This record gives sequence, structure tokens and C-alpha cells, in this order.
Amino acid sequence: MKIIFLSLLTLVSVIAFTQPTIKVNERRIEERIFELAKFGKDSMGRNYRIAFTKGDQQARTWFIGLIKNTSLDVSIDYAGNIIGKRKGKNPSLKPISFGSHIDMVPDGGNYDGCVGSIGALEIIEVLNENKIITEHPLEVIIFSNEEGGTIGSMAMAGHLTEEGLKQKSQSGLTIAEGIKAIGGNPDSIQYSIRKKGDIKAFLELHIEQGGILEKEKLQIGVVEGIVGIVHWEVTINGFANHAGTTPMNIRQDALLAAAKLIIAVNEVMNSVPGKQVGTIGKLAALPGAYNVIPGMVTLGLEIRDLSSAKVEELFRAIEKRAAIIASTSGTKITFQRQANESKPALTEKILQEKIAASAKALGFTYKLMQSGAGHDAQEIAWIAPVGMIFVPSVGGISHSPKEFTKAVDMANGANVLLQTILQLDKE
Amino acid sequence: MKIIFLSLLTLVSVIAFTQPTIKVNERRIEERIFELAKFGKDSMGRNYRIAFTKGDQQARTWFIGLIKNTSLDVSIDYAGNIIGKRKGKNPSLKPISFGSHIDMVPDGGNYDGCVGSIGALEIIEVLNENKIITEHPLEVIIFSNEEGGTIGSMAMAGHLTEEGLKQKSQSGLTIAEGIKAIGGNPDSIQYSIRKKGDIKAFLELHIEQGGILEKEKLQIGVVEGIVGIVHWEVTINGFANHAGTTPMNIRQDALLAAAKLIIAVNEVMNSVPGKQVGTIGKLAALPGAYNVIPGMVTLGLEIRDLSSAKVEELFRAIEKRAAIIASTSGTKITFQRQANESKPALTEKILQEKIAASAKALGFTYKLMQSGAGHDAQEIAWIAPVGMIFVPSVGGISHSPKEFTKAVDMANGANVLLQTILQLDKE
Repeated sequence: MKIIFLSLLTLVSVIAFTQPTIKVNERRIEERIFELAKFGKDSMGRNYRIAFTKGDQQARTWFIGLIKNTSLDVSIDYAGNIIGKRKGKNPSLKPISFGSHIDMVPDGGNYDGCVGSIGALEIIEVLNENKIITEHPLEVIIFSNEEGGTIGSMAMAGHLTEEGLKQKSQSGLTIAEGIKAIGGNPDSIQYSIRKKGDIKAFLELHIEQGGILEKEKLQIGVVEGIVGIVHWEVTINGFANHAGTTPMNIRQDALLAAAKLIIAVNEVMNSVPGKQVGTIGKLAALPGAYNVIPGMVTLGLEIRDLSSAKVEELFRAIEKRAAIIASTSGTKITFQRQANESKPALTEKILQEKIAASAKALGFTYKLMQSGAGHDAQEIAWIAPVGMIFVPSVGGISHSPKEFTKAVDMANGANVLLQTILQLDKE
Repeated sequence: MKIIFLSLLTLVSVIAFTQPTIKVNERRIEERIFELAKFGKDSMGRNYRIAFTKGDQQARTWFIGLIKNTSLDVSIDYAGNIIGKRKGKNPSLKPISFGSHIDMVPDGGNYDGCVGSIGALEIIEVLNENKIITEHPLEVIIFSNEEGGTIGSMAMAGHLTEEGLKQKSQSGLTIAEGIKAIGGNPDSIQYSIRKKGDIKAFLELHIEQGGILEKEKLQIGVVEGIVGIVHWEVTINGFANHAGTTPMNIRQDALLAAAKLIIAVNEVMNSVPGKQVGTIGKLAALPGAYNVIPGMVTLGLEIRDLSSAKVEELFRAIEKRAAIIASTSGTKITFQRQANESKPALTEKILQEKIAASAKALGFTYKLMQSGAGHDAQEIAWIAPVGMIFVPSVGGISHSPKEFTKAVDMANGANVLLQTILQLDKE
């Protein structure tokens, strides 16, 4: 008996091992990326698929058509999110959801959220072709207006406020008007909210938007979390004076103090191990003439990290350096924390492990990494366990028409997504 | 005989020593400063005596009236300069000239060129009151449009070109139109040119426009020369990238490179003894958002010194530092030298000595110093020996309504000017 039992087990493993793994269709993914890229051009032929605009609407119509062709039950929720549902064997189970977005920034790229959207649809295509019905219901979600502030996912997580609906979007319409334009209903926005537990898991495939995977020659990024972002408006007050008549040693040069602060920020960010980033992306020096010593500088400081505590710690270190700079340069440096900060969102440990295991089983190289950019998954993390899969972006370029991800990399990511869903379905 | 001879000499010196020195009228100077300050206000009541505007014209009319009252022979030359001539005993001698300007920068101060203009007129008043006729003819010159590029003195030195006449002045009029508006004639501008040797010496009294005299508690500045000014437009090309997804160690941050350059410029300027000044007064970082690493920075570099060779040497040192910064930061730094450079102008050694001797004889503390700002004397230095006398400006403030010079300091400067003229007249 004992021997027979062992043999049976061996047989089962051999079958499992040799069973050909179902795979996504690399060519179909890339063809659809190219087709989607045709929607949304400005008069100069540049990419212009801002959420709510004509190009966005046309792309959505095209995408809805594709989902319908896969026999999913398609609907648009009150926030304008496109939702395609596929029944599972067990209707009592909560759905496994996956998807991304197809809107873009002005003059943006054709990969960004498109890879995860077309990749999600590809999962359905492959399951259909292989006549596989999962235990759990499946749900493809194409979120509305991700680039304008993760509006669709925010609504789903219950974070879109009355105030938020009134804000102007980049399309020129308010968020409320835009949602109406794509078939949603801002007056019923509360009915698009999903409660905690409504979704078994949400998975998002996305291009990396950084150069780490490419640089390290890795195929898959297993996202540990999406960083939190805090902004400070920094003001440096010195004393504007004649650049010809004021000796070097009695100047209170706000721009010289700013230069020291920029370097201090860089040093502080590099002073501790980790993936934290700190940036001074904008700066204005006043009055701003060749022959006047700048009396005032305003600049924008941004810190991002997976840990809110680390962001605070780094900021305190910067503040300390700033105090020394101010006192030695005869300037005053003040930090005004901005209201728009976003909290870090961690992905689910179990989902990270399943994604990593799937990548490994498929023979792909991978690493755990953080997402420096915001994503819809960040909002959904408030109501469901989330996981994210990154694929390399050539040169780390994103939000640019130069954005490019190889077909093989998109397919690799979609295959990892597919296997992760199948593994998750077994639970 | 010998004894008698010595006694006579002694007697002469005692008389010279005890003869009461004639002095300017401190109160009259300040009263006239206050009167002049009333001309040229904008609708908000702020100082607005831009050359060629109504305020400038009214102030000139007032000033011409004052000169006429002193019985000088007043005329306006083709460049709009106001010239008051006083005959000397010896008509074959070339005139000793002195003066400054009464126009101002927008929202400027009431001392700047006014102290030297009213001071020049005060010399005539005192000579009249003391019935002193000098050997040399004397000439009070109030130059037109100093703040808009030393236009009047430039014309006198033969440097005002056809192109220059066509340029727009801050008044909105072209220089040619402006000159016409104040009674000059741009079509005959060449007849306002003075040849080398036409003027025995030109002396200008002016506020310091820096804080050196005040800081060092000195009463008089003996100007060694007016610095040369060179401007460079500096471009730093890095690579604009996502501030969230681009790790610190692979960034090509143009603003971080700019910060290092700003500090390098400061270090280079402080690395050698002397009075050289170097300033980065304007800076633009592109694209200029919290969440984008700056891909390009443009900034303005200015270097001033009395020695052109030193300016070049300092620039070469900055270039070297920039090359290192560029190579270590993955950026490209280029320097574009601007066309508007002005050459240094040295004052005449003999005039420096006479000014210093006059200050000393009057019991004033003084020092040799350079002028970091441009002046009419800089242009006149091309055609005549020039000397400049500085008086303290409170807080070193200039080109500001906060500009202030104490009455006693203005009088001290005018007394030094008077004694210098009298000494010069003896030659």
C-alpha cells in the first residue's frame, strides 16, 4: 500500500510537471497594443488620449467591443470603469479581479496602462481557447482616468469626494462631467464603491516606468508596494542686492543657499540604504536677473518611499541640514508641507509569493521591487489584497512617446499574471 | 638772509594752514535732494523717473533752472546732456568737468546719481558765494539716460551707434525719440562727441551702491576703477525622468549639476584674493514639476573685476570645475558668452591721489576701492582722465526706494570734490 501510494503521488507530479503550460499569445498582445495606439491623436499627430476626451472614448468603445467578443458580461460602473465579468464554477466565491487603464498623459506612451489592460483581456482569451473555467469568478477592470488621479479606482475604494467630482480634469471637463461623458453617473457614484471583502484579490500588470529591470537584465518585477509621496514647498529668503557692488563675503544669496540645500537633499537620500527617492524638480529664483543677487528662491521638494516613517525621518534629516545652511548663509528656509500627499500601499505578501513562484516556474528572472509611481492598485489596496507585476520598459522611459516594451516582455508579464490567477484559483 | 627766508616760508605755510577752507552747504544739498525726489511718481506714488518720461523731463527743467540761477551758461547737447559752463581766468585751458545723472531705475532711489548732480551744482554755488574764479573753465554735466545704458556719456565718447539709437528705452520710446523728447537731436548726435583732450579731467561724485564704506566706518571711497562685466548664458543638459521610478544612482539631474556649479562659482570667486565678484542671478529648471527630475537648466553667470585678465582666468577655473561636474553627473554644460560685455575702466592715478589728498586734508577717513556698478565716468574714461568719489549708502542699498545717504556724507563727498577741483586748478 505504502509503495502504491508513493507511486500514485509520483505519477500525479509527473503529470503536473509535463502538462503543457497554457500560454498567452505574444503576437496578439502586441497587435492590440498597436491598434489601441491609433486612438487619440492631436492635430499634430501626437499622442493625446487624455481621459474623457474623444480619443479616450473611442479607445474605450473599441476595448468594450473586444471584451464583448470574449463573451464576458460587460458593464460600465457609475465611476466610468469598464468591468467585464466571467462566471466561475463556484458562484459563492468572490471574484479574482485584474486590469489597469487605457487613458494616457498628454504626449504619453502606448504601453503604460495598456499592457496591463490588453494583458488582462489576453488572460480571458487564453482561458476561452483552452476551455478553462476557473472556480472563482474573474473580473477584468479597465479603470477610468488613472492619469488624472486614479479617479476610477478611487471611486471604487470610496475615496472620490464631492469636491473631487467638481475639480477640472485635463480634458477641460470637470471629473463629474467627464464621468458622464464616458457612460458613468456621478450622481450615483456611491454605488460604485466596493466593500472590503468584495474582491478576493486584485492583480495589475504594468510596465516598470523605471530602468531597474532593464539595467539588471531581469524579466519580471514583483512589486512589494507603491510608494507614498510627500511634497513640500520650500522658501529661501535671503537679500536681493546689486551683483556688482556687494562683496562676496557679505551676500545673503538665496540661490547659493538653495544650491547647498539641493546637494544636502541628495546626500540625505543617499545616506541610508534603501530605495527612497528625493527630488527637487522645480525652482524659481527672484528677482531673476544677471546683475541681481537672488533674494528669494522657492523650490519643490518631493520624497517617496514605501515607509511613511522613513519619509518622515529623511525629511527631519533634510530640515536639520537646512537649518545649518540657513544659519551659515544668512538666509531663512521654511518648509510648507503640501496637502496632496499619498500614503504608501503595500501589496499582499501571499500575492507577492504567488507572483514570484509563477515567474520562477516559468523560468523567468525576477526581483522584488517597489513602485515609484502611483497606480490604481494603490487605491484598490484599501479594499482588497493587491499584487502587481512589472515588466521592463526600454531605457526606463515612461509618459513619453518614446516609451517601449518588447512583445516578449509583455507576454512574459501576462503569462505570470495568468499563472498567478490559476494558482490563486486553487485556494 | 637764510633765517629771514625760512621765516617767510614758515609764515606762508602758517597762513595756508590757517586759511579757513571753503565748504559746501550741507543743508542746501539735502534740501535739493528732497526737492528733486518729488519729480517722477507713478499712479501708486512710487518713484518713477525713468529717462525720457514726463518725470525726467520735469526734473531736468527744474535742474536747468537751478543752474541758470548760478549764472552758468546752460545748454543741452545733441545727446540730451545738460551742460552748464563757467568761464575760467584762462580761456585757453581745457575745462574741468564734473557731474552725474538724475534719471532713475523704476522704483529706484533718490540718491544714486542725484548726489553727484546736486553736489556738482553745489560746487558752483560755493565758488560763487566765495567769489572764486578758477583758472580753468568749469563744466557741470548732467548726463542723459544713465540707467538705460549710460546713453548720454556714451554719445559724448562717440560710442552711441545708429543701432543703439533705434533701441527701445524703458520709457517706451526709442533712444532717438527719447533724446528728441528731452531737447537733443539724434540726427546730429555726432556733434555731441568730445575728442580726447577736450576735457582736462572729469570727476563724478556718487553713492557707493555697496555696503563697504558703511561696514568699515569710512567716509570717502577713492575709486580705482569701474569693473568690467561679462555675462554667460549657461545650459546644463541632463535627462528629464520620472522622479518616483528613477533610482537616485541612475539620475542625470540637471538641477543637481546646477547646484554643484553654483557652489563651484562661489568657491572659485573666493579662491583668490581681490575684489572680484561672481553671481548666478537667474535660473530656470525644466520641465519644472515636483515629480519630474529636471532635464535642463539654464542659468546666467556674471563675473566682474577691474582686470579683464582676471575675469578670463576666473572663468577658465569655472569652466574646469564645470567639466568635472558634467562628467560626474552625466550632464553636458555649455557656456554661451553674451555680447553685452563692458570693459573695465581705470580712473587716473593722479586724480586718485588728488582725491585721497583732499579727503586727508579735510580729516576724512577713506580707502581706495573699485566700483562694482557702471557709471558715466566709465564712458568718459575713453576720452578724458576720470576720477570718482564715493560716499556711504546706508545698508549698501541702491536702486531701491530704501536708498539713503546721510546729509553729512553727501556734504563730505561734495567737499572732497570741491577741494580736488581747486587742487587740480592749480596745475
